[in-house]
Amino acid sequence: MAMITQIPGGVCAAKGFRASGIHCGIRKNRTKRDVALIVSDLPAAAAAVYTQNLVKGAPIAVTRRHIADGYARAIICNSGNANTCNANGEEVAEEMCRMTAETLGLDAADIIVASTGVIGQPLNLEPIQSGLPALAAGLGYGEENGTFAAEAIMTTDTQRKEIAVEFTLGGKTCRMGGIAKGSGMIHPNMATMLVFVTTDAAISPELLQKALSADVTDSFNMVSVDGDTSTNDMLSILANGMAGNAPVTCADSEDFATFRKALATVTHDLCRRIAADGEGATKLLTCTASGAKDKACARTVAKSIICSSLLKAAMFGADANWGRVLCAIGYSGADVDVTRVDVDFRSAAGTVSVCRGGAGIPFSEEIAKTVLSEKEIEILVGLNAGEAEATAWGCDLTYDYVKINGDYRT
Amino acid sequence: MAMITQIPGGVCAAKGFRASGIHCGIRKNRTKRDVALIVSDLPAAAAAVYTQNLVKGAPIAVTRRHIADGYARAIICNSGNANTCNANGEEVAEEMCRMTAETLGLDAADIIVASTGVIGQPLNLEPIQSGLPALAAGLGYGEENGTFAAEAIMTTDTQRKEIAVEFTLGGKTCRMGGIAKGSGMIHPNMATMLVFVTTDAAISPELLQKALSADVTDSFNMVSVDGDTSTNDMLSILANGMAGNAPVTCADSEDFATFRKALATVTHDLCRRIAADGEGATKLLTCTASGAKDKACARTVAKSIICSSLLKAAMFGADANWGRVLCAIGYSGADVDVTRVDVDFRSAAGTVSVCRGGAGIPFSEEIAKTVLSEKEIEILVGLNAGEAEATAWGCDLTYDYVKINGDYRT
Repeated sequence: MAMITQIPGGVCAAKGFRASGIHCGIRKNRTKRDVALIVSDLPAAAAAVYTQNLVKGAPIAVTRRHIADGYARAIICNSGNANTCNANGEEVAEEMCRMTAETLGLDAADIIVASTGVIGQPLNLEPIQSGLPALAAGLGYGEENGTFAAEAIMTTDTQRKEIAVEFTLGGKTCRMGGIAKGSGMIHPNMATMLVFVTTDAAISPELLQKALSADVTDSFNMVSVDGDTSTNDMLSILANGMAGNAPVTCADSEDFATFRKALATVTHDLCRRIAADGEGATKLLTCTASGAKDKACARTVAKSIICSSLLKAAMFGADANWGRVLCAIGYSGADVDVTRVDVDFRSAAGTVSVCRGGAGIPFSEEIAKTVLSEKEIEILVGLNAGEAEATAWGCDLTYDYVKINGDYRT
Repeated sequence: MAMITQIPGGVCAAKGFRASGIHCGIRKNRTKRDVALIVSDLPAAAAAVYTQNLVKGAPIAVTRRHIADGYARAIICNSGNANTCNANGEEVAEEMCRMTAETLGLDAADIIVASTGVIGQPLNLEPIQSGLPALAAGLGYGEENGTFAAEAIMTTDTQRKEIAVEFTLGGKTCRMGGIAKGSGMIHPNMATMLVFVTTDAAISPELLQKALSADVTDSFNMVSVDGDTSTNDMLSILANGMAGNAPVTCADSEDFATFRKALATVTHDLCRRIAADGEGATKLLTCTASGAKDKACARTVAKSIICSSLLKAAMFGADANWGRVLCAIGYSGADVDVTRVDVDFRSAAGTVSVCRGGAGIPFSEEIAKTVLSEKEIEILVGLNAGEAEATAWGCDLTYDYVKINGDYRT
């Protein structure tokens, strides 16, 4: 079995990737970095998945065109304004690529562009235009350069989200790193919030896209903070081949399996981080539905539970209100025999079994309170109908979620 | 066009219906009535729609059996315990009917039974058993008797919900009245929370069911407080024929149309009340999607908007964050041309137009704040693709929703 080892760093962990992140002035807060730049030293195979929301941010249309040939060189991303629902959005996103390409001496058609923030306010490019020389000057291979990029894409996130791993393909050491931003409007559908992954592995654009598309089904599509699928979700990956491995070109190869495993390690870690840092969240909720008749059923059940406002509020209050778990299973649409459902809550403080065969069993409220007072809660659902299993990630619903979203624009 | 006139009262407005509601002791708070009883003087045609949640409260299975013959005489309903996910739930619900029938001198198979409250805790019938004599003694035809029943079915509701109307069928004056309880776990799917409607109109059980099933599509199925479809939703209606009209037996008749209109007047009013009194709500949100290519599209769009946690939080904060309206349209699944969407916010304080053709237009933030600071907000969406229209009702997402649901069971 291939070893995937976690290492320090983020998007600069892989060979030949430089990054930068500075405050250009899209946001008023001058201490907040608001534009990120990631550049590969060599042309990189590129793949992406996007939001399924019919309302799509203008950068998505532009990025889709720019990676249609399977390759890209750089990623430019601003926070503070989503460049969505603006009459001139695509022109602005194209111009953002043109400026970036000019500064870097690249072709505009090799730039991936992303924006995140408020919807429906024209994006003024002047701050980016005037900030680009400093942004380019700040490019570097260091771990801290990746961190600056990770910070620049944050919106209401309270924690930056980075991870890197090391693995071996054909005897060559490869690295992969990623950054992500949450933290509201999180309910991905065949895509996610913003996630950028870089790797020095050599892999064909076709297999890169295949790996990415397959990965999201069990990673970002299993995360929900608030049930709202963003207009600007994008997960993109650049693979520049600088690790020197023989390019991965066969879907049946062991190397492709290793690559997918490395990718899953990166994406699952970022999923946990996004959920744990959901707007207003005090707790990470991980729901695993096991014993399902098939994988789709397991996913539907786990996701429905993680999305229940009532359960999320109960978890905030450390209240073992397992009836809400049963309720969410019941309305999930999954074909489940509800009289066979078992439910346990588990955390670092222990496990409490609350439901067997669809009915309540006696448990200590005191122990339940202790279990549910931890920062990470597992909701374990046994469907007793088969062998399939799926995990979904979410967070509790808190006063701060309401506060943050009651007046987001000001 | 048939006239439907609102009159005072609730379930006792129609001829031959008595009601009662007292504190039996299911709930600890001795000032809270917790069991309601509604009795028809004559056998009544009966119809009901139920939750589509796979996890169903035990009373639903029992009620379904009891009205399978199209008739019933009485409704017994407790609050404080949902009798759901209990191993002996159906036995308990049957026993609740048996006790009630014995006290009233009726057949247990003519009793509709409902329970609402916490899921998964055994329902102790002793308080009901000992309270039944007083409950039956309290039965009366007066407006206040209906009010006691309306109060007894409340859980986290802060307002009781009653309405009554008068209309004419075949020259005879008929009356219809209803009561409802919200106010959390509200996201009906072919059914609703708990609603009981009584009428003295004469109508066949078949047409009564037909009217009810058709009505919910545009009434209770268009309400959402929190996206959680309850396990115990039930809307039931009793029609005892004591108005003396020639029985409505033909679906193509003018009388059936009048009956449906009266029913819609009652149900739409209760929908507004349920949404306005959603858990923690400070504002009633009414979203009307017009210009849709068909009714299903209009319903999907209006319901998606009303369900968005982000929009609900923005409305709490009186923040005209219309991008969230576009976002919710985009992920609704409805086939919509998002570049043609118009959005206005309207209230007693005026109207503010914020989006035309899918893009933002300049508006005064000051006026928008004034418009959105009212207690009732209309979100008007023009799809510019046809003639169909639908309305959905919801409420804002507030600190109090989190507070109420963070520790519901204690």
